[in-house]
Amino acid sequence: MADSAAAVAAAAKPVPLLKDELDIVIPTIRNLDFLEMWRPFFEPYHLIIVQDGDPSKIIRVPDGFDYELYNRNDINKILGPKASCISFKDSACRCFGYMVSKKKYIYTIDDDCFVAKDPSGKMINALQQHIKNLLCPSTPFFFNTLYDPYTEGADFVRGYPFSLREGVPTAVSHGLWLNIPDYDAPTQLVKPLERNQRYVDAVLTIPKGTLFPMCGMNLAFDRELIGPAMYFGLMGDGQPIGRYDDMWAGWCVKVICDHLGLGVKTGLPYIWHSKASNPFVNLRKEYKGIFWQEEIIPFFQSAALPKDCTTVQKCYIELSKQVKDKLSKVDPYFDKLADAMVTWIEAWDELNTPTGAAAKAPNGKAK
Amino acid sequence: MADSAAAVAAAAKPVPLLKDELDIVIPTIRNLDFLEMWRPFFEPYHLIIVQDGDPSKIIRVPDGFDYELYNRNDINKILGPKASCISFKDSACRCFGYMVSKKKYIYTIDDDCFVAKDPSGKMINALQQHIKNLLCPSTPFFFNTLYDPYTEGADFVRGYPFSLREGVPTAVSHGLWLNIPDYDAPTQLVKPLERNQRYVDAVLTIPKGTLFPMCGMNLAFDRELIGPAMYFGLMGDGQPIGRYDDMWAGWCVKVICDHLGLGVKTGLPYIWHSKASNPFVNLRKEYKGIFWQEEIIPFFQSAALPKDCTTVQKCYIELSKQVKDKLSKVDPYFDKLADAMVTWIEAWDELNTPTGAAAKAPNGKAK
Repeated sequence: MADSAAAVAAAAKPVPLLKDELDIVIPTIRNLDFLEMWRPFFEPYHLIIVQDGDPSKIIRVPDGFDYELYNRNDINKILGPKASCISFKDSACRCFGYMVSKKKYIYTIDDDCFVAKDPSGKMINALQQHIKNLLCPSTPFFFNTLYDPYTEGADFVRGYPFSLREGVPTAVSHGLWLNIPDYDAPTQLVKPLERNQRYVDAVLTIPKGTLFPMCGMNLAFDRELIGPAMYFGLMGDGQPIGRYDDMWAGWCVKVICDHLGLGVKTGLPYIWHSKASNPFVNLRKEYKGIFWQEEIIPFFQSAALPKDCTTVQKCYIELSKQVKDKLSKVDPYFDKLADAMVTWIEAWDELNTPTGAAAKAPNGKAK
Repeated sequence: MADSAAAVAAAAKPVPLLKDELDIVIPTIRNLDFLEMWRPFFEPYHLIIVQDGDPSKIIRVPDGFDYELYNRNDINKILGPKASCISFKDSACRCFGYMVSKKKYIYTIDDDCFVAKDPSGKMINALQQHIKNLLCPSTPFFFNTLYDPYTEGADFVRGYPFSLREGVPTAVSHGLWLNIPDYDAPTQLVKPLERNQRYVDAVLTIPKGTLFPMCGMNLAFDRELIGPAMYFGLMGDGQPIGRYDDMWAGWCVKVICDHLGLGVKTGLPYIWHSKASNPFVNLRKEYKGIFWQEEIIPFFQSAALPKDCTTVQKCYIELSKQVKDKLSKVDPYFDKLADAMVTWIEAWDELNTPTGAAAKAPNGKAK
């Protein structure tokens, strides 16, 4: 781990592209302008597109992008019976992309998210800020009132213990949204006209022991550090719930990061979230989650992992057991979800070993 | 407690002045421009000035301000032998002002802090923002990624449990500093030219279980909720340490707020911190603290208060016992400090009962 001064020096250096170390994972692209708008920032990277619905529908990808595309048939072919852990007809299927990636970092973004502008009117290179966030340490053990101490022009304030200034590796960078905020259906219904216009120029570490609502719209992570915990659960077709895929991942990820001494950052970068999803449809998807989260969150707040859980996989399997033990009484769905968590880890390990990697056969297109 | 929608509505209403409910506490005013610059914002309020050094020196207060002034002789007269708990020749003496105030809210500010401007160039009414922060609830149990959900134009994001949306009463509002950041001596020495130019347009609740470095430069609190814990310790003349007065208060306050279910906010408002204090002098004051904080912070992080500690006073007395038990081995200073904590509470209770209040006899001047 770098010392504080070195970390600050690193923050001031130009941000590396990480072209060969980062994949961009996108659930179905319905919006043709999406990739055109992101072209200056995304073209250097490899894209993994995971089609969430009907496999016979054709996804158009503009020329010049290097991508691989997976539809449901591909997922079934690659995972066999284990494909049951990947959601169908729901953007939660994107986590299949995390599993098949061979890169260290993942950035995932929705196709209704466009390039935002900072207060000076400059287009925000969201990916660059995520890379910055992931390459700088996190500070989960004590709060720094001037936000990310590794940012240029900032540091640790008076009273910050020196022993904590080297920080811990950052596993997750959670970005935010201008324009349409990420509200639940009840809030959307009550405040249909609310727009987020507040550009908060900060990145901060979510302290150890604190859970947060992780949104999958604009999210980057280090898959070597936390990948196997980034499971987006069972949502959509045949499931009693939707729109809790990223929340589920966020709760699991945070508990495991806290246990393993990894950091989670939130704040910059912003993307421009162009359109609100239908609040009535959302309410139907969410309403069980609105009840369930009242029990799920206390469960995760008190979840403790034993010391011998030294890898993400071990932590995740342990969590799946606790989910089965403690949440199955909330609804039989959690029994099924706990099993799917185990299947997910089995599939992850299968695809992420030298032999398993050969099984990946994308419908890709090299540039 | 107000419900979420009502709290938001309250946030959108004009901010009350709280003229009769708030005192401004200032340690010695050495800078004659200070009150002139703040006049448009401070003139409606009652000031409590606590002179930190030689009582024979005269503090000039411009016409038009309603104030009371206490020097060391006054403190000795009012508190008798209990005056030993109030620091001498150190701005930590300001906490005497918290004790003699009769108001619900306190705002404390240093005399080298001036009015800052927001990015649009508008003068920031710091006090108004503090009042806003104190009147809106806090959300210490779960992190809201769009920062203070009670701010106009913001709300709780998707995945925030509805049962936690009413929040808890806010006890502390910790404001920040543009220009000279609040750095320790080593950081000042290493980065003499660093200036804080980043205006972060956010207020956020410091989560439960997380400690933070509380700076006394620009700080407001609800003395009915947390006043007796706002003790700035033993600093300055005759003490082995300085510049840890606000830090000490911050650690105690946060542990007690967490125990009692009260909130601590940080972020807006900014003031303009005009000049850096001498880093060499600071290093002499701080250097023991730099070692000690490595043991003090883990102590506070693991401090637990029993259920029967239902008032701030009871919590504070319990903490003083734990300080004596666990920190005296770090240095005999903590034995003395633990005793002073008890004396402080005795003095607080003496002055804050109907009989005790009569003992207050300021060298004041009514407008």
